[in-house]
Amino acid sequence: MLRPTQQLKLILSLGSQAPVFGTLSTPSHCHLEPSRRLEELAAGLLATEPRPSRLAAQDQGRQRPACPAARRALRVPQCFTAPPHSRGDPAGRLCDPCPPPATWRAAQAGAMRKAERRVAGGSGSGSPLLEGRRSTESEVYDDGTNTFFWRAHTLTVLFILTCSLGYVTLLEETPQDTAYNTKRGIVASILVFLCFGVTQAKDGPFSRPHPAYWRFWLCVSVVYELFLIFILFQTVQDGRQFLKYVDPRLGVPLPERDYGGNCLIYDADNKTDPFHNIWDKLDGFVPAHFIGWYLKTLMIRDWWMCMIISVMFEFLEYSLEHQLPNFSECWWDHWIMDVLICNGLGIYCGMKTLEWLSLKTYKWQGLWNIPTYKGKMKRIAFQFTPYSWVRFEWKPASSLHRWLAVCGIILVFLLAELNTFYLKFVLWMPPEHYLVLLRLVFFVNVGGVAMREIYDFMDELKPHRKLGQQAWLVAAITVTELLIVVKYDPHTLTLSLPFYISQCWTLGSILVLTWTVWRFFLRDITMRYKETRRQKQQSHQGRAINNGDGHSGPDDDLLGTGTAEEEGTTNDSVPAEQEGASAAS
Amino acid sequence: MLRPTQQLKLILSLGSQAPVFGTLSTPSHCHLEPSRRLEELAAGLLATEPRPSRLAAQDQGRQRPACPAARRALRVPQCFTAPPHSRGDPAGRLCDPCPPPATWRAAQAGAMRKAERRVAGGSGSGSPLLEGRRSTESEVYDDGTNTFFWRAHTLTVLFILTCSLGYVTLLEETPQDTAYNTKRGIVASILVFLCFGVTQAKDGPFSRPHPAYWRFWLCVSVVYELFLIFILFQTVQDGRQFLKYVDPRLGVPLPERDYGGNCLIYDADNKTDPFHNIWDKLDGFVPAHFIGWYLKTLMIRDWWMCMIISVMFEFLEYSLEHQLPNFSECWWDHWIMDVLICNGLGIYCGMKTLEWLSLKTYKWQGLWNIPTYKGKMKRIAFQFTPYSWVRFEWKPASSLHRWLAVCGIILVFLLAELNTFYLKFVLWMPPEHYLVLLRLVFFVNVGGVAMREIYDFMDELKPHRKLGQQAWLVAAITVTELLIVVKYDPHTLTLSLPFYISQCWTLGSILVLTWTVWRFFLRDITMRYKETRRQKQQSHQGRAINNGDGHSGPDDDLLGTGTAEEEGTTNDSVPAEQEGASAAS
Repeated sequence: MLRPTQQLKLILSLGSQAPVFGTLSTPSHCHLEPSRRLEELAAGLLATEPRPSRLAAQDQGRQRPACPAARRALRVPQCFTAPPHSRGDPAGRLCDPCPPPATWRAAQAGAMRKAERRVAGGSGSGSPLLEGRRSTESEVYDDGTNTFFWRAHTLTVLFILTCSLGYVTLLEETPQDTAYNTKRGIVASILVFLCFGVTQAKDGPFSRPHPAYWRFWLCVSVVYELFLIFILFQTVQDGRQFLKYVDPRLGVPLPERDYGGNCLIYDADNKTDPFHNIWDKLDGFVPAHFIGWYLKTLMIRDWWMCMIISVMFEFLEYSLEHQLPNFSECWWDHWIMDVLICNGLGIYCGMKTLEWLSLKTYKWQGLWNIPTYKGKMKRIAFQFTPYSWVRFEWKPASSLHRWLAVCGIILVFLLAELNTFYLKFVLWMPPEHYLVLLRLVFFVNVGGVAMREIYDFMDELKPHRKLGQQAWLVAAITVTELLIVVKYDPHTLTLSLPFYISQCWTLGSILVLTWTVWRFFLRDITMRYKETRRQKQQSHQGRAINNGDGHSGPDDDLLGTGTAEEEGTTNDSVPAEQEGASAAS
Repeated sequence: MLRPTQQLKLILSLGSQAPVFGTLSTPSHCHLEPSRRLEELAAGLLATEPRPSRLAAQDQGRQRPACPAARRALRVPQCFTAPPHSRGDPAGRLCDPCPPPATWRAAQAGAMRKAERRVAGGSGSGSPLLEGRRSTESEVYDDGTNTFFWRAHTLTVLFILTCSLGYVTLLEETPQDTAYNTKRGIVASILVFLCFGVTQAKDGPFSRPHPAYWRFWLCVSVVYELFLIFILFQTVQDGRQFLKYVDPRLGVPLPERDYGGNCLIYDADNKTDPFHNIWDKLDGFVPAHFIGWYLKTLMIRDWWMCMIISVMFEFLEYSLEHQLPNFSECWWDHWIMDVLICNGLGIYCGMKTLEWLSLKTYKWQGLWNIPTYKGKMKRIAFQFTPYSWVRFEWKPASSLHRWLAVCGIILVFLLAELNTFYLKFVLWMPPEHYLVLLRLVFFVNVGGVAMREIYDFMDELKPHRKLGQQAWLVAAITVTELLIVVKYDPHTLTLSLPFYISQCWTLGSILVLTWTVWRFFLRDITMRYKETRRQKQQSHQGRAINNGDGHSGPDDDLLGTGTAEEEGTTNDSVPAEQEGASAAS
């Protein structure tokens, strides 16, 4: 039989393994973790003298705002809470338990059910419920309402599918055209696959506006990848002609186009409109660039990375305009219209949105629990905003592993952007073709999920890590598109870079490589050497003092140099880096 | 500030929502539930007088067997346990904590990681970890060893896939044959899909020998279903000719075959071998029937259902032999060779295996934790046995919902079996063709998963229920095969049944319908009526007694009749049924 103290220790060890469900039921300003609370409560119980616990002392010291005016003034949201103990809240704000306990238990039970459903649905490694909330994740409060749209409808979908198939194949007359039937059969297979996937596929990290939306895009990724694989295995001519089945206007060589043109900003020769060169460049691609970069910023969630990708793509355009005439633009088109105005403005707006998203409270109530009409409208609108938010802290200079990962992400991103141009070039698609636009829409939808899964994969502390399904597919798609480009037009791809451009790239690569070697190998060795020397000298000093002779040698210089090295910042990508000693992997 | 009792109640409410991980760490004879233990411990703590807890009293009363001989005699397995308190163990057996606590904590942590991984992988609704173990489920002990084969290898697969694709498409020369390339492209797409699915698909309820094995069959189900959909949308001629791409020998009408033949058991005319009719029937299908029914029994896990399906299929063969000559057999072939010998023996062996599987202990240790060579060999062999076991208690007469579900399952099962014959008939495939055998192998692999998912779906207590992915696909496949049969040969299907056969089926259907109506509607109404009458009479009696006149009327008869009705068993399928009053839904 265990003594009470042993029993409580057992309770603690059991309780600390309970899922951190408490975060669901606390508002975003109250940090509540049941495992720590258990420790404190148990510590209070185990104390030999009856004394007020630390919690009581904290509690008495705080001002508890009255509902609701003072609470609004202090920005304390209305909430369902456990008894009001909040730890770690720097402003010391408390949340009043307004609804009665029965409602709170119901909400908690609802939240648990929701947690189980998300987990049972395989919500992937980004679920904050089972692994503990990371410091970069927002707190989420959810009252756990489970409406019609959130329940599974597997049998309903099966029934509707059966009826549709039966109607189309038995009650309609089958056409006699083999080519038409083949096409119809393929389209029907794709639709049935989408039915199955939207009903049964594994959920990813996103759930707004609805998880089925993201399952749909996952299935579209699969279909697109299989289509690319098929194209990859055809001969060049067959592959291009095969696109006629998708759009009969394809399969013909692209007409020659004049891309470069006059680069004068002020064209004195043109009396009507001296600035006509500028207006010529303002086509549909300008808002497309802006919207694209706005969305890319929401995906990448890091200003430095966005700027680097934006600038490097302009370098790539310069480097490859001998291969793709599409890339030859005027200098002001590259740097002012693209980088500064379109991309830059898009990135700026994206960063503002990111700021709003990371400061926002994530408090979700079922529509039926909201009393006001205005509140209901707002809730419906917010269904199209994220359920929760994770700040991406890429920290590329913090370890070799993260550095290589970030470099890899930037490379793959640039590759995917290049593929947009090369793929339509080798498959003879005009830039305005709807398939090109569809592909961009596709990437916009899957890119966010993929980036989140990549971030989770990098951030994952568990020994076994699994790359998310969407990220896996996006990587496979990018690689397959590259293989198609390489197979279908090796001649264009092997047009050699102009010498000065290859010189620049070589220089840039050498610089990056040198920095990598210094940062993650030499600096580590140097600091360890210095540390060993310093310890030796300290021990010499110590023995000298013990022997009676105390003197300080060159230690201060050594320490000074060491500290200067640690504080030195030579990172040219992300300024947020950790301490050198802990960072070197 | 909460009083200690309130604090403990909070601990209880928090702790009761912790996952029931304790079942993983206890051997199969010890029932341990942390939430109940917390209650008991807290009850002990909250008691106003210091008195020995109920646990201590229970503990002192038991004999604790010494390791290891007495333990073997009492069939108490060696185990990692928490402190030895076991509740609900009728034999009062205890498990000695043999390994030191550090190992126990490591095992528990390992089990938790394994639980998280299974849950994060979306192990479906059959997971005993998150929902609490059902009474029909075996207890499982797992030391949580996580070896190479159990870790995800998403990046490795992606890398190997990339290299293979690059090699095949860039380094090999592309053949110029369009038809060959089309076929190769389709095969490559299927292989890439299998790669993706085996790496990333949602896990089902099975995990032995490896979850990837079941993900593979899931992907094969998807591919098969899409293939069927494609065939469904072709004309009859095109569909049959399309199979030439799979096997050039197909696409030709089936030759006429003589199926019935001489039905004499003892053929006096044949001097060489009077029993030649019997030996003629002993072909490769005899062991196939036996093995098939052995495996079907493992899928269905219920003797009554197996026998019903077996017998009803013989009735169907009798009924449909005018449509499929394949079905015309001698009477002794139907009832003695098929039902009694092949099927019957297969079912018998299956039931014996089921018995062994449900009594077996499920104790899994990592290979490296097993000291003896013989133990390691045994562990490797047992990798091909189930991880845990669920006894299927279909209980069809317990509610209308379960009755309809069981009838539906039997119908779909029979339909799938009929499809085997009809599909190869309409697609012009000889019975010995390897595709027919492959289809049977396919169904054997996916059928077990589908039945388990259907059982879990029926058994699911949560308000939102989701049919498993494999079950969904098997249902879709069965329906699609039926649609193909109906579309491709409506003439054969509409050959009307002989009159006496349709009479038998009509009679059978009417009997089943009548029983359904009586059992789930009339009996309920009757019993409630009787109950109301009895209550009225009891209240009359009560008033009469109060008024001084006590007499008993026809109550005893009424009660007697009511009880007789409740105890009446008219269920002709499964003998295990619940009490009538609680059963009527």
